Amino acid sequence: MALRTREEYIESLRRQKPKVYLGGEEIENIVDHPAFKVGINSAAVTYELGQDPQYRELATVMSPIINEEISRWTHIMRDEQDALAKIKMWSGLGNYPCPCHYRCITSDVLHAAWATSYEIDKNHNTSYHRNVQEIVKEIQRNDLIIGGGFVSPKGDRSKGPAEQADPDMYLHVVEKRKDGIVVRGAKAHSTASPYTNMLCVIEMESPEDYYVGFFTPVDTEGLTFICRPSHAPTEPKEMENPISSKFGGHVEAMMVFDDVFVPWERVFMCGEYDSVITFGPILGASHLWHKCMCRAGNMDLSIGATALIADYNGVGNAPHIFDSLCEMAMSAEILRSCVVSAAVEGWRHDSGVFVPRPSPVAAGKIYSAKKLGEHRYYMQDAAGGLVGTMATEKDYRSPITGKYLEKYYKGREGVPTEDRVRAIRLIEDLTASEFAGWYHAMCISGGGSELSFKTWLAMEYDFEKSKLKAKKAAGIGG
Amino acid sequence: MALRTREEYIESLRRQKPKVYLGGEEIENIVDHPAFKVGINSAAVTYELGQDPQYRELATVMSPIINEEISRWTHIMRDEQDALAKIKMWSGLGNYPCPCHYRCITSDVLHAAWATSYEIDKNHNTSYHRNVQEIVKEIQRNDLIIGGGFVSPKGDRSKGPAEQADPDMYLHVVEKRKDGIVVRGAKAHSTASPYTNMLCVIEMESPEDYYVGFFTPVDTEGLTFICRPSHAPTEPKEMENPISSKFGGHVEAMMVFDDVFVPWERVFMCGEYDSVITFGPILGASHLWHKCMCRAGNMDLSIGATALIADYNGVGNAPHIFDSLCEMAMSAEILRSCVVSAAVEGWRHDSGVFVPRPSPVAAGKIYSAKKLGEHRYYMQDAAGGLVGTMATEKDYRSPITGKYLEKYYKGREGVPTEDRVRAIRLIEDLTASEFAGWYHAMCISGGGSELSFKTWLAMEYDFEKSKLKAKKAAGIGG
Amino acid sequence: MALRTREEYIESLRRQKPKVYLGGEEIENIVDHPAFKVGINSAAVTYELGQDPQYRELATVMSPIINEEISRWTHIMRDEQDALAKIKMWSGLGNYPCPCHYRCITSDVLHAAWATSYEIDKNHNTSYHRNVQEIVKEIQRNDLIIGGGFVSPKGDRSKGPAEQADPDMYLHVVEKRKDGIVVRGAKAHSTASPYTNMLCVIEMESPEDYYVGFFTPVDTEGLTFICRPSHAPTEPKEMENPISSKFGGHVEAMMVFDDVFVPWERVFMCGEYDSVITFGPILGASHLWHKCMCRAGNMDLSIGATALIADYNGVGNAPHIFDSLCEMAMSAEILRSCVVSAAVEGWRHDSGVFVPRPSPVAAGKIYSAKKLGEHRYYMQDAAGGLVGTMATEKDYRSPITGKYLEKYYKGREGVPTEDRVRAIRLIEDLTASEFAGWYHAMCISGGGSELSFKTWLAMEYDFEKSKLKAKKAAGIGG
Amino acid sequence: MALRTREEYIESLRRQKPKVYLGGEEIENIVDHPAFKVGINSAAVTYELGQDPQYRELATVMSPIINEEISRWTHIMRDEQDALAKIKMWSGLGNYPCPCHYRCITSDVLHAAWATSYEIDKNHNTSYHRNVQEIVKEIQRNDLIIGGGFVSPKGDRSKGPAEQADPDMYLHVVEKRKDGIVVRGAKAHSTASPYTNMLCVIEMESPEDYYVGFFTPVDTEGLTFICRPSHAPTEPKEMENPISSKFGGHVEAMMVFDDVFVPWERVFMCGEYDSVITFGPILGASHLWHKCMCRAGNMDLSIGATALIADYNGVGNAPHIFDSLCEMAMSAEILRSCVVSAAVEGWRHDSGVFVPRPSPVAAGKIYSAKKLGEHRYYMQDAAGGLVGTMATEKDYRSPITGKYLEKYYKGREGVPTEDRVRAIRLIEDLTASEFAGWYHAMCISGGGSELSFKTWLAMEYDFEKSKLKAKKAAGIGG
Repeated sequence: MALRTREEYIESLRRQKPKVYLGGEEIENIVDHPAFKVGINSAAVTYELGQDPQYRELATVMSPIINEEISRWTHIMRDEQDALAKIKMWSGLGNYPCPCHYRCITSDVLHAAWATSYEIDKNHNTSYHRNVQEIVKEIQRNDLIIGGGFVSPKGDRSKGPAEQADPDMYLHVVEKRKDGIVVRGAKAHSTASPYTNMLCVIEMESPEDYYVGFFTPVDTEGLTFICRPSHAPTEPKEMENPISSKFGGHVEAMMVFDDVFVPWERVFMCGEYDSVITFGPILGASHLWHKCMCRAGNMDLSIGATALIADYNGVGNAPHIFDSLCEMAMSAEILRSCVVSAAVEGWRHDSGVFVPRPSPVAAGKIYSAKKLGEHRYYMQDAAGGLVGTMATEKDYRSPITGKYLEKYYKGREGVPTEDRVRAIRLIEDLTASEFAGWYHAMCISGGGSELSFKTWLAMEYDFEKSKLKAKKAAGIGG
Repeated sequence: MALRTREEYIESLRRQKPKVYLGGEEIENIVDHPAFKVGINSAAVTYELGQDPQYRELATVMSPIINEEISRWTHIMRDEQDALAKIKMWSGLGNYPCPCHYRCITSDVLHAAWATSYEIDKNHNTSYHRNVQEIVKEIQRNDLIIGGGFVSPKGDRSKGPAEQADPDMYLHVVEKRKDGIVVRGAKAHSTASPYTNMLCVIEMESPEDYYVGFFTPVDTEGLTFICRPSHAPTEPKEMENPISSKFGGHVEAMMVFDDVFVPWERVFMCGEYDSVITFGPILGASHLWHKCMCRAGNMDLSIGATALIADYNGVGNAPHIFDSLCEMAMSAEILRSCVVSAAVEGWRHDSGVFVPRPSPVAAGKIYSAKKLGEHRYYMQDAAGGLVGTMATEKDYRSPITGKYLEKYYKGREGVPTEDRVRAIRLIEDLTASEFAGWYHAMCISGGGSELSFKTWLAMEYDFEKSKLKAKKAAGIGG
Repeated sequence: MALRTREEYIESLRRQKPKVYLGGEEIENIVDHPAFKVGINSAAVTYELGQDPQYRELATVMSPIINEEISRWTHIMRDEQDALAKIKMWSGLGNYPCPCHYRCITSDVLHAAWATSYEIDKNHNTSYHRNVQEIVKEIQRNDLIIGGGFVSPKGDRSKGPAEQADPDMYLHVVEKRKDGIVVRGAKAHSTASPYTNMLCVIEMESPEDYYVGFFTPVDTEGLTFICRPSHAPTEPKEMENPISSKFGGHVEAMMVFDDVFVPWERVFMCGEYDSVITFGPILGASHLWHKCMCRAGNMDLSIGATALIADYNGVGNAPHIFDSLCEMAMSAEILRSCVVSAAVEGWRHDSGVFVPRPSPVAAGKIYSAKKLGEHRYYMQDAAGGLVGTMATEKDYRSPITGKYLEKYYKGREGVPTEDRVRAIRLIEDLTASEFAGWYHAMCISGGGSELSFKTWLAMEYDFEKSKLKAKKAAGIGG
Repeated sequence: MALRTREEYIESLRRQKPKVYLGGEEIENIVDHPAFKVGINSAAVTYELGQDPQYRELATVMSPIINEEISRWTHIMRDEQDALAKIKMWSGLGNYPCPCHYRCITSDVLHAAWATSYEIDKNHNTSYHRNVQEIVKEIQRNDLIIGGGFVSPKGDRSKGPAEQADPDMYLHVVEKRKDGIVVRGAKAHSTASPYTNMLCVIEMESPEDYYVGFFTPVDTEGLTFICRPSHAPTEPKEMENPISSKFGGHVEAMMVFDDVFVPWERVFMCGEYDSVITFGPILGASHLWHKCMCRAGNMDLSIGATALIADYNGVGNAPHIFDSLCEMAMSAEILRSCVVSAAVEGWRHDSGVFVPRPSPVAAGKIYSAKKLGEHRYYMQDAAGGLVGTMATEKDYRSPITGKYLEKYYKGREGVPTEDRVRAIRLIEDLTASEFAGWYHAMCISGGGSELSFKTWLAMEYDFEKSKLKAKKAAGIGG
């Protein structure tokens, strides 16, 4: 099948029958439901790119696993060159204004599961790696998109799984059968999952029952999605919410596993604690790396929007605008540097997968999340008071009020009023819409908390080596 | 009438017949229109406070102008004690979660117009001050709320009024008659104006036609409001948007003056340039002072919400939470200090009005606008991934999905699940809703841009004195 | 004696015979020793101010305790007016470029000891308060300066006094006699103490032996000062180090108490734990308040120096300089607001002393310490590369090289080269000298660590009230 | 000669006879003069590294120009691999505590002159490139170190060279002869230049006389160095100033060119304006790249010192220390990422030299300069009050006072007191010494001002492309 088209992706969703609830009702057909439109459209972006003549070459790669041309999104990276090629493809994608297509997870879990299953087999004489190989082949052949189930509800965060009042606060194996396992629990904020083609679900806690990893179809028996609509306007507003009417965030879902059966062929870990040092770091490094790429693309959009509205307002050359633009451009350069550095300083796992170095992108993730508030300040400051106060499109199009708005929303000479209105609306959509709120949340908590990344970074940074350097400098020791 | 009740205020709106458009349609009755509900409810807060036994005393003051008990919101401050009393009243108001009641403008314009008309009369042998005195009496007697029209569309911001392609880009006097003036132009982002009882409109540019200040009824002939709905959910969602369903921002309006007649009795400046140094600084100092008070109250709410959700998540004592709370509390203390300092270091204008010192609150305004992004980071970081991903209330109440959500949204023991859900929704409403976007915009651009405040601060700070100190320290000069 | 002159202060030091070591040698006469010059000169500033006709009135106050005119530095504040008067005096002092005169401690300890002794007497039927009253009278009559001994070495900071391997790591009472107590231990970084007239020493730990407070002469038997020289140039360089040659920091001392006897008349606490809630908060609030005042004065000097050098370089009107100056001026306004607010919102202790509210100045202290690095950036950025690279004064005065330097150090027309050289040297002394390093350390650690102030602030900020507000807003609870 | 030893480098300085003044006196022999010790020792570090068996391989490279093994510091990079190898060598150098060896300039000017001369020859039929080739051969064969003269005094910064009252405020050609040119003017803050083996001097202004670039010996006729001593303690204090006694900054010099003759063979540009787009960007990109590498090494030292003292104080595991360390480690990762990214995204000039991409390191330079104040805060906060207040080494070694200091400077059990003293002194030397002041200045102004780098970054960042992306997103245009 090589690369699927946007239509083939959407068609595949129609064939799936997940149990989906939203707003208190069961949704039979998510594809045509307004709450899912924007999310599915966002996920479809990666399929569009694959058909875009300008990017097709970058989007395609020869798979050494199935010896066919496949989408780069399903490719298992093997070396630095693969990593740099991906950055280039992503950079192309950066020209699409979609802030989050969510295809990253497909790549993240395949890399992590590939390495982890290899590692466990080596240490425990299991045969998980073959399972993962088969799944990778299936994904590559059919150009699938994978959803992730990583975060359990956790209940009281100061307690572990076994100490919780309710044992289901973390997902766990309730039965091991000859042909597979039965799992119970839930996964919170599983972005986009109802419109993916397969799920990868993990829990990595103790005791043993709480340590498991598997793949499963989205319409498996016993699995329920309780969804929250995309952070998009109720009806698409192409002028007022130019981004969020099309790509404005994903449907978020809680996935409830009410004794779901998973055949052994789809399991890749089950109780082998030692693999925690493989799966987590690879999943995380990959995901942060992808996150930083998308964030950098979004920064470019913010910079462009700021430069544009300043120009339309007639203050394109004001010193404070210049300074704001430079500050934002510096952030973009720094973030991009983190992405490149993680690629160049990556490493190859014994199983053959190439993994970006986590620290640069952990730092980049926190850095860019903290910069968001500052950037929005610059954007709104350049746009002026009309952000959040501009009249509706309906009034702009109205024969009665339209003439006033056309007259009074005019900016500098040579710029059509409508262009200025659209530019201000873009700033508003990026900084002051419901979507903007979701995006902020995704930047802060998406992928994990600041503390978790700092802990990780602290493990990788060689403090002892630096202490030795300090000792030598201070004249301490031998 | 002394102090109006909430109902009397709303009743007064019913009697007014402003020409209001919203969403392409004329709105006959704004009081019962859903788009205006939240805005009117926010403005009504100051009337509620006046009836609240706990605050009634603070909310009332004896007017030396009409020798009656009046609402403190319409009082002309005469000394530091008045200013400190207002801070106390505002502090009480801070216990209401309303982020913006908009009554500040009533006070701002009365102080500025009072002083300015006095000043002009002295220099130009005019008799504006009597006009203002009569208006103040009317406002005080009837406990009115005033809307402001300060910001013209401006067109090309690099050009002045006379250089614009369209002469109406700034409001101006098109005719001076014996009995009054006729004005033309527009005022952008005039918050809440359709549901006030009177408007104060100014332009302070040159040439002379562009220099004017007056009061006018909201339903005067030739005035059109083109509105944007409150940044509230389409239908009130008491659990999901606990703030913005009730107080979630105001209706914003463009006011179009299509040859509006204003009798001389309502005019308080008309071509007397030199008064620019009186009106602007007093209006600004007063408004920034009020803005900082409201922002400080909002910080308390943010701090409380953060402490609450951390507690519900079982991490109330985690060091990083402690640090976040302290950082926010420091901001609140600093901002409050700016408010107190502006009051204590205020000055009395010859006309008798007491004016807060502008620099502390100009600094406080910029400081607190820049802190907003950082505070939201702390809030979302403490709340975790459910901000922006939580399922809808309908699913929470549903017999099918509700049981899962009740089970899996549970936090630490002893906290009802619904309380935790509500606490997360509060964080979401404060940081990631459409209202949150509007609030950010209001913090950044509301009242003027950073550059305008810096320019102002630079005029007040005595750089020459500091240079002299530096010279003395460096051993330069005599 | 009323107010002492600078000379009388210095004369008083000559009469004292403290045991002082510095650089491995015993110093018989500190007054004439080069390492002490700058420190004594700094302390003398408060005596100079008292003789300065411009400030004399502010510097004097009628003492209700001894019914004589006294120096305001020894005055026990009784109300807000006292506090505001002190701010005014300090503001006058701000015109002296001395960054730290250290007279603050005199005021801090008198307020704290006055209240604490009163409190203990009430609870324990002791008679400490009379002791303190007598000491205050002595201080006021003779216009003395007090040194403080607050910080013990602490050893292993993760352990308390009793757990330390060496029991002397915290100061403690080793013997209680009929006529007094004997103490042992040490006090670290006791700024300026050798050239004060009396010491106030405390320890407030458990067990009981480690809880004590007393006054003692500087030349008491058994007390040794081990000093570190002022952070001043080895020989005064009036042009190269214009600040630090005169006021460049104090002598720091470790005070070792090797079984020092203190008569009961000089003791004001000894084992009465409960007083910890009185002494610490009052000492701290007073000290932070004073610290913020001095820091604000120093900010003015930094602002003036920046404006001056920008002017001399011919870029006084460049937008980035304007922005830097405004940022610094905002910081100064904010810090000053914290000072004013702490005064206005202060409280009177039962014993009659008026105490500033701690939170605004705790916040101000941390805020201003963190701003120092940023301000230095602005200062050096405005001054340019000559900071840290300029040739010596000797070369500037040399007949051979002087002509080149005179020629090539020239700035904009109209500014004598020497003035520009001096202005750059001022920036250098303020940002890049050894003194600048000490000043940074004093801003960060002086008075206590960030964590200690946050802990304090967290005790004062009413988190529960804010949580209640949040609950109400979220619709939680009854 | 291949790689010189440290001794050979110093011997070469003895053979040179530059005209050097310092402190008003002429210095005949700089090698043995105390003011030059630390600077020469710092420059010698690169020669030491070349002899260090651990780094020798990295420090050596086969030169395709002279077909010999040469020092990597004199190598002309040809591709990304060269760039990555240099990063590795620098990383090794990072284990030396020297903050600035100044060998960077050698590499910077060779790359820039190589490309520029090639470019000019192509456009103007000149033969500069051969000159540069010969110079490169000489440098490589003899392992020389080059000093730079880039910054003219500038006088009034708001005016260009021709508008200055004194025409010599910018360096210029006063005579063109058949055999060479004669130049007049001065170069300010030329770091380390008296102890290099050759100078590269440029001016790139108009009119034509002010556009010139050449190499010249340090002891050429008519050239005078007016020096400022290294920012090191007057006498080396191995314990008190462990860094700055050995590597504490360089001698800074003003170089005065009083009609200096330069033969044409040493000139590589002279009036060919168009080359400004080649020389500046390559010099700058190279220099910023090197600067970021050194700064990252210095960050590691700061991190190590902080971790060390926290450990010695017994608070190595305190949450606020963990947070400080992580913040600093993130900065180090980000800065290193900028270095790697600049290398990987570099480009090859037609002349064959490989140039790092400037934007990442321009951003990194500003980022790291602004972080310095923050990092010092963390460092001092972890170390506590003894920074800047600790007694002298002489007292520590004294038989009288030493026993007290040994007792009371003790930290946590298991750590010798002297080690703790040394660790605190290291923090002090890095954050609060005169050297620390110079280092701050070098981070801020070294290599150019923030504004100049922003201007540069603004030229490289593609704002138009981002505007186009914004337009597309907003629905503006075709």
